[in-house]
Amino acid sequence: MKRILTLICSLCSVAAMAQTPSEYNLAGKMFPQVNPDRTVTFQFNAPSASKVVLNLGKDYEMTKNEKGVWTVTTDPQVVGFHYYAVKVGGLSVIDPASAVFYGTSKYSSAIEVPESAAEADYYTPKQGVPQGAVRSVRFYSDVCKEWRRMYVYTPAEYYSNPDKRYPVLYLQHGGGEDEQGWIFQGRADIIMDNLIAEGKAEPMIIVMNSGYAQIPGSTDSFDAFEQMMTEEVIPFVDQRYRTIADREHRATAGLSWGAKQAYDLAFGYPQYYSAVGGFSGIIVVGDFGNRANPGILDKAQRNAAYNGIFSNPKQFNKDFDVLFIANGEAEGSHLANMSKTLKKAGIKNTFYQSPETAHEWLTWRRCLYNYVQLLFKK
Amino acid sequence: MKRILTLICSLCSVAAMAQTPSEYNLAGKMFPQVNPDRTVTFQFNAPSASKVVLNLGKDYEMTKNEKGVWTVTTDPQVVGFHYYAVKVGGLSVIDPASAVFYGTSKYSSAIEVPESAAEADYYTPKQGVPQGAVRSVRFYSDVCKEWRRMYVYTPAEYYSNPDKRYPVLYLQHGGGEDEQGWIFQGRADIIMDNLIAEGKAEPMIIVMNSGYAQIPGSTDSFDAFEQMMTEEVIPFVDQRYRTIADREHRATAGLSWGAKQAYDLAFGYPQYYSAVGGFSGIIVVGDFGNRANPGILDKAQRNAAYNGIFSNPKQFNKDFDVLFIANGEAEGSHLANMSKTLKKAGIKNTFYQSPETAHEWLTWRRCLYNYVQLLFKK
Repeated sequence: MKRILTLICSLCSVAAMAQTPSEYNLAGKMFPQVNPDRTVTFQFNAPSASKVVLNLGKDYEMTKNEKGVWTVTTDPQVVGFHYYAVKVGGLSVIDPASAVFYGTSKYSSAIEVPESAAEADYYTPKQGVPQGAVRSVRFYSDVCKEWRRMYVYTPAEYYSNPDKRYPVLYLQHGGGEDEQGWIFQGRADIIMDNLIAEGKAEPMIIVMNSGYAQIPGSTDSFDAFEQMMTEEVIPFVDQRYRTIADREHRATAGLSWGAKQAYDLAFGYPQYYSAVGGFSGIIVVGDFGNRANPGILDKAQRNAAYNGIFSNPKQFNKDFDVLFIANGEAEGSHLANMSKTLKKAGIKNTFYQSPETAHEWLTWRRCLYNYVQLLFKK
Repeated sequence: MKRILTLICSLCSVAAMAQTPSEYNLAGKMFPQVNPDRTVTFQFNAPSASKVVLNLGKDYEMTKNEKGVWTVTTDPQVVGFHYYAVKVGGLSVIDPASAVFYGTSKYSSAIEVPESAAEADYYTPKQGVPQGAVRSVRFYSDVCKEWRRMYVYTPAEYYSNPDKRYPVLYLQHGGGEDEQGWIFQGRADIIMDNLIAEGKAEPMIIVMNSGYAQIPGSTDSFDAFEQMMTEEVIPFVDQRYRTIADREHRATAGLSWGAKQAYDLAFGYPQYYSAVGGFSGIIVVGDFGNRANPGILDKAQRNAAYNGIFSNPKQFNKDFDVLFIANGEAEGSHLANMSKTLKKAGIKNTFYQSPETAHEWLTWRRCLYNYVQLLFKK
């Protein structure tokens, strides 16, 4: 009886595993597989290797079978999007079975550990929901002296309402990522399609640029960013797309390092933006090195920052329809403190914390989902 | 004197090399570098490896320096786009310094060995040339029971002429590639922007789908392709975009295996298409295995194929405005023979051969450049 049960369980287990190859696997690839208990089983073909290690958050030593295929099953994983790598003989390589994503300044393999269908609903494509489009657009930057690419999301109704004009959100990725991140890792287009279909967000255009923008010859890899955005990207977008080209219909947001860039845009160029969101990133006032205690907590430093924008809360609250501060629960309380300090100083803001998640894409999908519902409501 | 000359030459050489990191290198990566003599210098960091081989068409053993960095300079390369890989201890890996491209059924590193500026002119972005856009569009296929992605190129004037409708080219990639190929490897969008700006091609929409489309449960990875294209993709595109939705304004083309698919679409569903281009691929009549002598050379086989479409040349020439057959010079003469045989049989067609190039993307860029100039001229 025990043997029969074991056999049945073993069959069940095989059946369950066979149904769950990771959604990022390339065509015909059965591994990695995400198991029902959120462990992940990896395979890697390297007959001549003497040691192979799978890195997913931490290292897991893989075991070789008689065919030279290495395998390992990890601990249960947190839900969401995770990069991983395979280490062979001191070398970190991608898994040829996986699609790749640009992150940590290179192309990396990744898995998606699914949430429940209900939890994942807002970033899942649905039949019956009209699909917007993501456009890849080349443009020449005179500031950077190079051809660049931006991604532009237009809502589904952009096609059917040829006379309607739309507000614009300028959305930034994090350090080591690029303009692809919000689409491929973040699923911003699906999130927007679903929210717009439910009437929870205003139809809007989203423009995604790489935050790396360098003045030729400089050694600072992003010293041209603000000038490029202000003098080139915004005019280009307003010329090419049916935008409402005023500050009341222009927002910005970003994640991690991109949050700092979004704050720099909004508070450095308030004539352009009326809303700003920072996901897992601080408003940098004073010493950027002291992240645990950004200068914003200090009244004198805060009031001197950005030409004194925080020194007149009444004007600030009039100028900015939305200041959205957010992070993941596992990231700690420093952003909750920043939000509280600003509120105490009279600066209105909305704080959001993503349950359980860390400095990772599921946090930022949730941040975007919550942030865009606040935008352009006037 | 000789020492000074050597020093100067060595400095020149360093200066020249420093100016030519491959255009696909990720930010800040100096290698690979394409040298003026079209050799390519690669670097790969693997201190603990005992042997590292660079594969670019053939294998090149790399040499390790005292810092554990391996290097090699290859033979002079043919101009154009080439995949490459690094082999470490029996493992083939990507170069973390390079952008990656989906080809040979996985993501691969690649270099572009530049032609002269004049030769490369047609696929080089230019200031002053209005830029079209490439849209990534999700759609649900009821035939395949899955969410899929298509890429859609719209010409620059699509924005400024909101009432104008456009013809459509359905363009297919080759085996082991996907819907990204024509944009990232093929530069179809830049080629079109330049041709349209010069008045050499009609402004048109280009739709790119993955040729892998499987009926659920089948073992044939593309048995749903024709049904999906005919019953789902064309209606979706005609509904969403400002197309001219008749056969006179619809063309198809493909490269390699995609050429076969394009011919199958055009000749199997002639009510949908009035033009077809096959780049480096044969019209399969009879035995697909016999590629050197496709059945099209045999009159009886040819006349029986595709419901007899070739048996009435007069009707064929009336129905098809363009039949474009092309390949690279280094691929041999079988397509020239196919073109001649069809001409002898009274089937009008245009043959193009790309000088010097082989079964590779530079051939196909040139094919596209020549093909689209013939389209929609009535």
